[in-house]
Amino acid sequence: MRMPVEPIDPNFETRVRASFELQKVMGLIGARLGRVEPGVAEIAIDARGNLTQQDGYVHAGIVTTILDTACGYAAYTLMPADSGVLSVEFKVNLLAPAKGERITARAEVKRAGQTLTVCSADAFAIDNGTKTVCATMLATIFCVKSRRS
Amino acid sequence: MRMPVEPIDPNFETRVRASFELQKVMGLIGARLGRVEPGVAEIAIDARGNLTQQDGYVHAGIVTTILDTACGYAAYTLMPADSGVLSVEFKVNLLAPAKGERITARAEVKRAGQTLTVCSADAFAIDNGTKTVCATMLATIFCVKSRRS
Amino acid sequence: MRMPVEPIDPNFETRVRASFELQKVMGLIGARLGRVEPGVAEIAIDARGNLTQQDGYVHAGIVTTILDTACGYAAYTLMPADSGVLSVEFKVNLLAPAKGERITARAEVKRAGQTLTVCSADAFAIDNGTKTVCATMLATIFCVKSRRS
Amino acid sequence: MRMPVEPIDPNFETRVRASFELQKVMGLIGARLGRVEPGVAEIAIDARGNLTQQDGYVHAGIVTTILDTACGYAAYTLMPADSGVLSVEFKVNLLAPAKGERITARAEVKRAGQTLTVCSADAFAIDNGTKTVCATMLATIFCVKSRRS
Repeated sequence: MRMPVEPIDPNFETRVRASFELQKVMGLIGARLGRVEPGVAEIAIDARGNLTQQDGYVHAGIVTTILDTACGYAAYTLMPADSGVLSVEFKVNLLAPAKGERITARAEVKRAGQTLTVCSADAFAIDNGTKTVCATMLATIFCVKSRRS
Repeated sequence: MRMPVEPIDPNFETRVRASFELQKVMGLIGARLGRVEPGVAEIAIDARGNLTQQDGYVHAGIVTTILDTACGYAAYTLMPADSGVLSVEFKVNLLAPAKGERITARAEVKRAGQTLTVCSADAFAIDNGTKTVCATMLATIFCVKSRRS
Repeated sequence: MRMPVEPIDPNFETRVRASFELQKVMGLIGARLGRVEPGVAEIAIDARGNLTQQDGYVHAGIVTTILDTACGYAAYTLMPADSGVLSVEFKVNLLAPAKGERITARAEVKRAGQTLTVCSADAFAIDNGTKTVCATMLATIFCVKSRRS
Repeated sequence: MRMPVEPIDPNFETRVRASFELQKVMGLIGARLGRVEPGVAEIAIDARGNLTQQDGYVHAGIVTTILDTACGYAAYTLMPADSGVLSVEFKVNLLAPAKGERITARAEVKRAGQTLTVCSADAFAIDNGTKTVCATMLATIFCVKSRRS
């Protein structure tokens, strides 16, 4: 459904993975960066006991953490080599309990602009091998131009 | 500006604090529940190094985690004694870098309904004693009625 | 990509079209209800001069009007015969100028629940035969149960 | 609560009112621009029969139309003389039926930036002299810099 997009920076994947390594919170919650393709990024976490809310599900804020980072990096794949990336805003609908073994997030660029990029992302709960959409995000991402340019 | 609201359950504060204790992720990120009043809840975290994104600021998802929990519990103060609380959806605008010593979130009920309650919340970055709004949330919270009732 | 859904009420289309006829604002803006299928609804307007904002594009609020109605009726196709439908909230990202001959909106149910249904919708600008996504909505719809039940 | 803001362009009100006159949809729905102050804009409509949804209330999309325009112009009061204004995105929670004699919208700038401004707005239903918040918006507005600058 998604049209292939040509990234401006051929080294986009290295750049995205290097930035992900700088996000210390990813270590805290055990997040792993999966696929990084033009306009796409995927992140996964295990549904560990220390990530939960009062009912034992993964907290909506933690699901949001991986959705937001996935959106940011999906957008960042299409940005210039010397740019930075910031979230402007996002909206999340919680669709089902975030429970099971693992939560994954997959973000896609919906519209890439020079300054603003709009991404959508889904989070999935993997429970006994069954994959259920548990949350969905619509986000606006800002491209921070290099001061050198 | 906010009108005083009469809670249905006089033990609302005990109920909210007990639920907060069950949110294990609050321990992971070092969150503390502050004021709990009818239609209001406050949460604070220290801006620890392991909560950061790539620029060294507290990750938007972590700010969202305390905003969402503050909204949920602001709504929960006005719900019946045997109810549960769930987030339906929220929207967050990031307004300034979440940096400094501490991040606090304050949520207020905007409209309380039998099933759905709408809350707004602001997050503040406390940096060298200066308090700056760094994010704002608009959220819809669901009241889960007890199966016993 | 969307899974087929079985509507509870076999007369869902008649019910949706009757409700649409009651929305007098649809007459004011010249909106036409297109396809109505289980979990799907489409609406179109001509990009008339009296619907515009200051740059001559169709106003974001008018695009929202058809996106919201499309979401409501996409959800309503799956609701019981004697129910009513209300919007709880929606979020819209504006992606491109709403200009050309015609604006269309297509909504799909993302998750149907007993009380709340989440829909996503896209609006398209049809300009000289070219179709461009100009806006996207993520919405929460409420099922009003009949007082008779 | 809101801090006074100093507009860059002393003629902001004339500029805002001139832009409002260009929004032809405002004539269609009978909208009137009220107060225009630094960081603030107000708009009102009569709750006419041809603006309604299926239950006879003013359609959420029409309420959104005045909320969005109020947010845009609240932001525009603080922008440079030769700039333009565009909505990036907004989120609306519907809080009560939009019914009565009149619907008013009041928007305030929450954070003004060089490129992006965040506004919040409330809509009120005036019904037999009683004023009820019927909807609330959180919006991101884009400042289009003049090509001449």
